[in-house]
Amino acid sequence: MGEGDTPLVRSRHLGPELGCPDLFFKLEGCNPTGSFKDRGMVVAIAKAMEENSVGVMCASTGNTSASAAAYSAYCGLAAWVLIPKGEVALGKLAQAMAYGARILLVDGNFDAALALVREFTDNNPITLVNSVNPHRIEGQKTAAFEVSDILGDAPDYLFIPVGNAGNITAYWRGFVEYHQLGQNDTLPKMMGFQAAGAAPIVLGKPVAFPQTIASAIRIGNPASWKQAERARDQSGGTIDSVYR
Amino acid sequence: MGEGDTPLVRSRHLGPELGCPDLFFKLEGCNPTGSFKDRGMVVAIAKAMEENSVGVMCASTGNTSASAAAYSAYCGLAAWVLIPKGEVALGKLAQAMAYGARILLVDGNFDAALALVREFTDNNPITLVNSVNPHRIEGQKTAAFEVSDILGDAPDYLFIPVGNAGNITAYWRGFVEYHQLGQNDTLPKMMGFQAAGAAPIVLGKPVAFPQTIASAIRIGNPASWKQAERARDQSGGTIDSVYR
Repeated sequence: MGEGDTPLVRSRHLGPELGCPDLFFKLEGCNPTGSFKDRGMVVAIAKAMEENSVGVMCASTGNTSASAAAYSAYCGLAAWVLIPKGEVALGKLAQAMAYGARILLVDGNFDAALALVREFTDNNPITLVNSVNPHRIEGQKTAAFEVSDILGDAPDYLFIPVGNAGNITAYWRGFVEYHQLGQNDTLPKMMGFQAAGAAPIVLGKPVAFPQTIASAIRIGNPASWKQAERARDQSGGTIDSVYR
Repeated sequence: MGEGDTPLVRSRHLGPELGCPDLFFKLEGCNPTGSFKDRGMVVAIAKAMEENSVGVMCASTGNTSASAAAYSAYCGLAAWVLIPKGEVALGKLAQAMAYGARILLVDGNFDAALALVREFTDNNPITLVNSVNPHRIEGQKTAAFEVSDILGDAPDYLFIPVGNAGNITAYWRGFVEYHQLGQNDTLPKMMGFQAAGAAPIVLGKPVAFPQTIASAIRIGNPASWKQAERARDQSGGTIDSVYR
């Protein structure tokens, strides 16, 4: 549906102010459903079709559900979105609903919803498209290819928010693969950032009740925790926390 | 900032259902601020800078104000947005405010706000960036170039909502210019659509109190009325109204 190939825009203010003349922003909001999730979802949905799935399922109230619903609708698959009963935020769900996803309310928290998704998809021709689906990271790594293509090499640093840690994992994989293919001479230092109230990787232990206004990274026990640490350590970067 | 070059996506459901196998959607929401306005605004802002303007001004509560604010911020210009006091819709203005525009409330309706903008920009080094700014249509016509480039020629028909009629004017200009340059063999029939409660061009007279839930086309006296009629007549298309 036109995912990827998003603009890489040079900073005109923040970069010079910070003494960094070559600061760029990757405008992932320019993807069809408004987030980078589309890059991975298109692969996950294609693989679901290869496997003759009749639909996809995820636990999510945010960008994942919107992307899953859009690509499912486009490809003629059903989409189910499970959300914790107490955390229904209509504003966030509206996009998935507009794309025709069926919304199911679960008695319990996000983990309970995800557990139900796992159980249901294990026993039915339905594909789980939460971030534990490995095809999503394969799609998301294309952003690293694009950045490298535009700059002519990997950047020195990549700065990225870390919630479930799938995106930092995907970017690192993309840069490493491009390097192995001889497309990049160098590799970037991966600089990840968690919200101070939801910083399990920074603290080195899960956070039971993660808090931050940035709901997309309000995650206490990231699925790609180990991969994110590996990206940080192999690249010589850091994962740090910021105030809110 | 990466405006334009938006996806042209083939319909998988609606087209076949309508008996039209080659129906495409142009995803203009993939522009940096989320609407086609960015195509014209980047030209309007560039021209404002050439003219040594210190800022831009518009009367708008919607996509125009968001786009004007974003491109002004990027280029170091001030942006003022004038809106009728009774019609403050925070949700729509939030984007312009986030980009740093100064919001001014005007006692009176939209026409009164636009009249103030005209008066102020006539007498100060400030550029009016409402749709009467001719550079905006020059930028917006690039969408027609892109459609033609992807399809290899102009489409048979172009279907487009009509409010102020700037976009139907811009597309037609783009197709005609591409045709004159020998890039297109053909020209499309321009099929414009107004909301039934805000259909001045269909009715042939201004609508004093236009009504529609589609607020971007809630316009009773379009600035590009004559150009839209010309596009319709020269192309052999129609401008019609739909239910809501």
